Amino acid sequence: MKSLYLENETLSYKENHPKPAQEGEALIRVRLAGICGTDLEMVRGYYPFLGVPGHEFVGEVVESDDKSWVGQRVVGEINVTCGACDACLNGRSSHCETRTTLGIHNRDGIFAEYVTLPTRHLHRVPDSVSDEKAVFTELLAAALEIPQEVHIRPTDRILLIGAGRFGQLIAQVLQLTGADLSVVARHPLQQNLLKERGIKLIAGEAVEAKRWDVVVDATGSASGFELARQAIRPRGTLVMKSTYKGDMQVNFSSIVVDEINIVGSRCGPFAPALRLLANGLINPLGMIADEYPLEDGLQAFEKAAERGVLKVLLRP
Amino acid sequence: MKSLYLENETLSYKENHPKPAQEGEALIRVRLAGICGTDLEMVRGYYPFLGVPGHEFVGEVVESDDKSWVGQRVVGEINVTCGACDACLNGRSSHCETRTTLGIHNRDGIFAEYVTLPTRHLHRVPDSVSDEKAVFTELLAAALEIPQEVHIRPTDRILLIGAGRFGQLIAQVLQLTGADLSVVARHPLQQNLLKERGIKLIAGEAVEAKRWDVVVDATGSASGFELARQAIRPRGTLVMKSTYKGDMQVNFSSIVVDEINIVGSRCGPFAPALRLLANGLINPLGMIADEYPLEDGLQAFEKAAERGVLKVLLRP
Repeated sequence: MKSLYLENETLSYKENHPKPAQEGEALIRVRLAGICGTDLEMVRGYYPFLGVPGHEFVGEVVESDDKSWVGQRVVGEINVTCGACDACLNGRSSHCETRTTLGIHNRDGIFAEYVTLPTRHLHRVPDSVSDEKAVFTELLAAALEIPQEVHIRPTDRILLIGAGRFGQLIAQVLQLTGADLSVVARHPLQQNLLKERGIKLIAGEAVEAKRWDVVVDATGSASGFELARQAIRPRGTLVMKSTYKGDMQVNFSSIVVDEINIVGSRCGPFAPALRLLANGLINPLGMIADEYPLEDGLQAFEKAAERGVLKVLLRP
Repeated sequence: MKSLYLENETLSYKENHPKPAQEGEALIRVRLAGICGTDLEMVRGYYPFLGVPGHEFVGEVVESDDKSWVGQRVVGEINVTCGACDACLNGRSSHCETRTTLGIHNRDGIFAEYVTLPTRHLHRVPDSVSDEKAVFTELLAAALEIPQEVHIRPTDRILLIGAGRFGQLIAQVLQLTGADLSVVARHPLQQNLLKERGIKLIAGEAVEAKRWDVVVDATGSASGFELARQAIRPRGTLVMKSTYKGDMQVNFSSIVVDEINIVGSRCGPFAPALRLLANGLINPLGMIADEYPLEDGLQAFEKAAERGVLKVLLRP
């Protein structure tokens, strides 16, 4: 099969053999895939990875020992877990200690014609959810991990810092809580998408210090964290919804004195993401910047890396 | 001014003098009012009350010592609180021990041409929210008290029992969480409104015992509570979102053994209700059954008491 392939920080389009489906696994034909910030960072060499990258996709099961899956349109979890370790047995399977991660860690991803995944990590896509929406399921699931971990109250004042690919979906999820949401968004395109949904914008310089009940940093930058740290009220909750490159120098005494609750947050639940796409309460279509055939994947990666570009899709 | 008036469980339409606005109060011309289950129960004699009933309204300020309010379209809180007691000073003002309650307890309500309320209990209505939507603000606020009090997770399975005037808005609020919601709704009209929004229905007999993370009883009936009690899983949260007539006989040992969390819930926050009406994430218009001029108020109450009828509006 044809796929994108990452080797020595160099991406190529080449012939590659799909791993045959093991027991309990399905062979899935990828229908549509999305390029994520993590994919771009891998190509830049921030994560070492050898193989097929990519983890945002919607596909169709073509082979499975459980025949009820064959022909089903599906999305698949990013974390492939053992189901038997302490974390898996205690409801924390995204922290499975022997997990592989689709297209990121020890498992070939989905910028390919085919991919294999355990059927227990698949979710059927309702007919009312188009491929163009379903391809956002994994990213939306990660956004939903915020209300999964943090009790957000309708009366809360929430500050979201960052409104790129991920921030846009986080903003939509936070808006559903009824809370008083303001978003720091730099790029005009990001700002317009938020304005269309009636979401308030605020300039970074206008953010009042120590006045926000919940602050979400989706920038992954030291300056984003610093703004979040200034904004959060005493006893507020600061959600770090992005990984940060390298180490950061942080004044922890002030975090103790202000009794701040810092919450790291990563992957989230797929089932509620599919529900919110199916009933239309979340609509990601405005985020799609462009679509390329898989063979033009290198060009697609260049496009996705341009400033202000949101989601670029690949169709194998 | 003309108003409805309740005396000895008898409702009449008569001439009545509005109380003049005190210091800090506004005189408000009522533009549109809604009949609530509590109003019907007062007429049936379940609550003793002498005066003008009604608490769901949208109006326009015609007099106020703070001139910035004059001409503003407003909704007003149902609880009028002292602002100085232990409850008020500790963020629990809806539990103010000397509170009066609009049209329910020690304060004339809004089935009238005019009403007075302290300006600190008013909220401006955004231009994008029509009178027909704004009149639902108080009821929606009460529904929002559920996510205000209870951390509902997107992965939760939620059972809502009851889909009348209040249950419909509760269902819309719970749907926004992304959780897996099923509703026990008896009347076909109630069922159709839920189906139109993609909300799942379940028959009472089909509710699995001890399998639901959160159960909301909006029936206020012993049978509703009993179904809720059977449905809730060990360590689940049972929200009582309605008052119950008289006392109920409940097996409390089983609540201890199953470690159930029971949450009583009443009035809620207005600001998030207005935000969700303004951005269209909540739409109550389908609930409006009929509208009457205030002078036909008695007829309107009869209509509102008919089986399956949702919201009846009164226009002074």
